[in-house]
Amino acid sequence: MKALVYQGNNKIQVENKPKPEIINPTDCIVKITATTICGTDLHIWKGDVPTVEKGRTLGHEGIGIIEAVGDAVSNFRVNDKVLISCITSCGTCSFCKDKMYSQCVRGGWLLGHKIDGTQAEYVRIPFADTSLYPIPDSVDEEPFVMFSDILPTGFETGVLKGRIKLGDKVAIIGAGPIGLATLLTAQFYTPETIFVVDRDNYRLEVAKKLGATYIINDVTKNAVNTILEMTQNKGVDVAIEAVGTPEAFDTCQAIVGAGGHIANIGVHGKEVSLHLEQLWNKNITLTTALVDTFSIPDLLKVYRNGKLNPNELITHHFDLDEILQAYEIFKNSSEKHSLKIILKAKN
Amino acid sequence: MKALVYQGNNKIQVENKPKPEIINPTDCIVKITATTICGTDLHIWKGDVPTVEKGRTLGHEGIGIIEAVGDAVSNFRVNDKVLISCITSCGTCSFCKDKMYSQCVRGGWLLGHKIDGTQAEYVRIPFADTSLYPIPDSVDEEPFVMFSDILPTGFETGVLKGRIKLGDKVAIIGAGPIGLATLLTAQFYTPETIFVVDRDNYRLEVAKKLGATYIINDVTKNAVNTILEMTQNKGVDVAIEAVGTPEAFDTCQAIVGAGGHIANIGVHGKEVSLHLEQLWNKNITLTTALVDTFSIPDLLKVYRNGKLNPNELITHHFDLDEILQAYEIFKNSSEKHSLKIILKAKN
Repeated sequence: MKALVYQGNNKIQVENKPKPEIINPTDCIVKITATTICGTDLHIWKGDVPTVEKGRTLGHEGIGIIEAVGDAVSNFRVNDKVLISCITSCGTCSFCKDKMYSQCVRGGWLLGHKIDGTQAEYVRIPFADTSLYPIPDSVDEEPFVMFSDILPTGFETGVLKGRIKLGDKVAIIGAGPIGLATLLTAQFYTPETIFVVDRDNYRLEVAKKLGATYIINDVTKNAVNTILEMTQNKGVDVAIEAVGTPEAFDTCQAIVGAGGHIANIGVHGKEVSLHLEQLWNKNITLTTALVDTFSIPDLLKVYRNGKLNPNELITHHFDLDEILQAYEIFKNSSEKHSLKIILKAKN
Repeated sequence: MKALVYQGNNKIQVENKPKPEIINPTDCIVKITATTICGTDLHIWKGDVPTVEKGRTLGHEGIGIIEAVGDAVSNFRVNDKVLISCITSCGTCSFCKDKMYSQCVRGGWLLGHKIDGTQAEYVRIPFADTSLYPIPDSVDEEPFVMFSDILPTGFETGVLKGRIKLGDKVAIIGAGPIGLATLLTAQFYTPETIFVVDRDNYRLEVAKKLGATYIINDVTKNAVNTILEMTQNKGVDVAIEAVGTPEAFDTCQAIVGAGGHIANIGVHGKEVSLHLEQLWNKNITLTTALVDTFSIPDLLKVYRNGKLNPNELITHHFDLDEILQAYEIFKNSSEKHSLKIILKAKN
């Protein structure tokens, strides 16, 4: 089968690999029907994620059809349509019992990281009973790809960790797919104001369309001063870091109000300065999190009810075997106006 | 009257000052019967708190008897015995309505900071109805001084913010009065293990006596390695910073387990490094807080029921007019084995 493989040394390539097989009785083999590329994949490509070994098939998002089922799998059968969670959970360790699947001692972020991922024709999913979700027949399947990672990530690590509530002032720093997923799901709790900050006007325009109250281009306007002015120097109730840079984290520290929350979503490669000399007495709560994806079932319910529309996040379509071209488009997102790219397998 | 006054330039002195008078109808004047010295007073003495002006009477803890009552005060009368909260709250702003008195827009930390404090024969207490608590007659009044600041601080900013719960592994970094107050109140929620780390064997022995499961002298043993070994490298559920130094904060970051909490209590004068490159995906919650003292009434209830004994925190007694001598003992706490010092007014 064809697979997108990390070659080490900042190289990726499409390779022929053997089809994966059932290893453990809790595995399923899934034939991929659609997958996508994540900012994290770009980090791996650049060599920022040293835990990814040379030869690894990338990708941790996708949907597909069950091809084979291990003897211990109860919830799925061959030919079931499934949504793949980016997080694998054993379902039985103490973290899984607390729904903190990201920290699962046997799972966590495995796909496209420690085991071969979804940017291939087939993928092996360990602990399938607790790591896959059913997709009903006769629906448009494409939007389900957005539920593997970005929608639960925005919702769980941004909205829930940040405790966004009715009437809050919220700032989302970064309007990439994750920031926009946070924007979409923040509106479940009806905050008063959502500021969205980015340096890309296209992304800001999408944010405006998806419900941002104010969009601020941090290149043309200083976001900190603008937000402090617009909040009478009180700052925001919730500041969400959806970039993964010291600068974006600094912006959050500068705009969070007394008693407020900073929810970090961004992947950070280095330490940041925490201004405890200013924050020690401001009753701030700061959270970090890798998504657990426990919210996938609830997000799917409100999607089916029409209360969540992720289609605006999908900007491009390619066949799965054009994936290298898709990576180029995704990497040059500012120039290409790309957000999420759907990669469809040929039947 | 006599008062302990900050002179600027790292100097404190006992001065004669006019007795305070009612300024606003919500004020009370309290005749101090006992007060104490806080680590924060030492910071002011050293010039670390630039918001304290020269000429300010220090002190934000104490008990006394009401001497005069403003026209708008409803809850107190002349001759009532009262406990003074270190935090002044107007009771009507949005922060006060959320019980976040520390951020009160008209109050907060005023005493011995922005207005004259309790290390004097008399003190003016603004918003007396919401900033004083009654002390019943015929009880030993001395322990009530511990409820002005250190017990609610340990409980609210350490135990509650850290969300200590049944069966948790907890580490308290720093066994000064605040760390020990945290230790005492952490036991309300029956954690499995409480590690207490300090560099002073006397304080560690007190911690052992007050319920620490393990005491670790960080000078003779590396606390991080010891705690990681003793937790099978899983780290602790709750790490509490009760010192106020970058080193103590680093220890907390190094020992907190996945899904854990870091509760910062310490007063920090400079920024610290936050290791987001290690913590971004560990589902950590970090909190900062100035005490609100909303818990004083509940702490008093359990004290009256014998479930909280702060007497072990009181190591020395002086007359109020020996306060300079008391400051010397408190400053040299390691050599003098001092924790909290009670300063009693003569009748």
